[in-house]
Amino acid sequence: MRAESQGRPMRRGISRPGKVWIVGAGPGDPELLTVRARKVLRASDIVFHDRLVDPRVLDALPARIARVEVGKEPGGRKVAEEEIIARLVRASREGLSIVRLKGGDPCVFGRGGEEAHALARLGIPFEIVPGVSAATAAPELAGIPLTYRGVARSFAVVTARSEAGSIPRPLPRADTLVVLMAVEVIEEVSAALLGDGWSGETPCALVERASLPGSRVVIGTIGSIAQEARAMEIHPPAALVVGPTVLLRFTANGGERAAGGNAACAALPADEPAQTEAPVFASDDWGGAP
Amino acid sequence: MRAESQGRPMRRGISRPGKVWIVGAGPGDPELLTVRARKVLRASDIVFHDRLVDPRVLDALPARIARVEVGKEPGGRKVAEEEIIARLVRASREGLSIVRLKGGDPCVFGRGGEEAHALARLGIPFEIVPGVSAATAAPELAGIPLTYRGVARSFAVVTARSEAGSIPRPLPRADTLVVLMAVEVIEEVSAALLGDGWSGETPCALVERASLPGSRVVIGTIGSIAQEARAMEIHPPAALVVGPTVLLRFTANGGERAAGGNAACAALPADEPAQTEAPVFASDDWGGAP
Repeated sequence: MRAESQGRPMRRGISRPGKVWIVGAGPGDPELLTVRARKVLRASDIVFHDRLVDPRVLDALPARIARVEVGKEPGGRKVAEEEIIARLVRASREGLSIVRLKGGDPCVFGRGGEEAHALARLGIPFEIVPGVSAATAAPELAGIPLTYRGVARSFAVVTARSEAGSIPRPLPRADTLVVLMAVEVIEEVSAALLGDGWSGETPCALVERASLPGSRVVIGTIGSIAQEARAMEIHPPAALVVGPTVLLRFTANGGERAAGGNAACAALPADEPAQTEAPVFASDDWGGAP
Repeated sequence: MRAESQGRPMRRGISRPGKVWIVGAGPGDPELLTVRARKVLRASDIVFHDRLVDPRVLDALPARIARVEVGKEPGGRKVAEEEIIARLVRASREGLSIVRLKGGDPCVFGRGGEEAHALARLGIPFEIVPGVSAATAAPELAGIPLTYRGVARSFAVVTARSEAGSIPRPLPRADTLVVLMAVEVIEEVSAALLGDGWSGETPCALVERASLPGSRVVIGTIGSIAQEARAMEIHPPAALVVGPTVLLRFTANGGERAAGGNAACAALPADEPAQTEAPVFASDDWGGAP
């Protein structure tokens, strides 16, 4: 199966002329790349990356590796999906070892599946490298467990932004709900939750820039979160977490900040009491999911 | 904030006497650890790990690091959660730099939240290091995108195994549903799905040992999957994926197997045709979620 090609020795499994690695970059912090992602990145010839991929990930690459941004800027120049595929195909036919780098996980709202299909159709070899999704990392970096014994036995994930331009209705239902890309349409998201039968008193949190410097978290309820978000001037990217585990938020690390750590908590007002006791919480106590 | 302690130089942010890192080990393949997870593991003095953590992750650690299994064996000796906490606390008071290593992501059915609360209550510094959850990695390593434009705009995750011993009812609802730990109770899971109003014709896949050698995937419908799982002798750990994106399964990599790659597909029967076309699929075509 192994071969030498074009006089360049192949590094086993991480470099191959004409192959595309569809790679998740994780939520932002370069240390939340997987070991495999870092290996295939360093062994690549060219990286096609989304706009949301942290610049530090790209800056750490050897200078010989070409970097091409193919992300969509809000309101700015948009690289169509077809054009992205065309560029991947061209690079493949040039015999390059290619990384397609996406924020989070490539198949969680990342269109990894669409690009995989396009490459498969053309007979271009590819491989998916899973990444840490912001859907799971953003809540826990803000100290909010997605699941908790006796409180939350399931979670669901949806994105508030789509080509269709509207929030999917009904929203998915689970004990904990994560809404990605929520902040720009936070009023509509709150209204949709109420319309689906969630109580306005259900606790929720908006996590801004999870895993990145300056990350913040705002706590409220479905009824109050839109106003809180405006008051705190929360900007994208931000994930909304809805459900009773928001009240179980822990404060980690004795206030110490660390890369990949719970930086979100450190940016809270200093007078907020540290959460040192898990609230006693019966699972039907809360005015929760319909 | 930085200090020397007990004559041992601290490595910035990755080693600290008395601190506990609660770390996700990813779905199994050691290359799907995050860069940060590998750093804190290598800088630690002692690792308390679950049974499901792949031995290769532990074998790769320097010999000076103590490894302690605290996982629960089915039917075997069970280390109670209280005992795990007690051991973490004892190690912390001895001034060790401690890793609590869990399969997947620590807050996705991993009780990371419970352990974080216990440590916070006792004033023990800790940090969460997110991991790649099997909930997202298992489907995509089997070639099944969790979300897909025009087909699936949301996903939900639940575990079929719990202290309560029963499957949560109703199950969460989303375009794609992932049921972890599904194989031992596959008949009950199928019945619960039908009871919740899913059509028996809804496509589903059971992914065994995602990211590990010998991984397999079985495709069926809600009506047929239990029988297929028995016929193929699928064993835990296995994740069930339910919804229309199962039909969009792609075959990656030209059959090449790679660590971290789509090994699941390679174990399929050799006579199964490669998926080279994305099926034309209208989102209301399928007998899907209720």
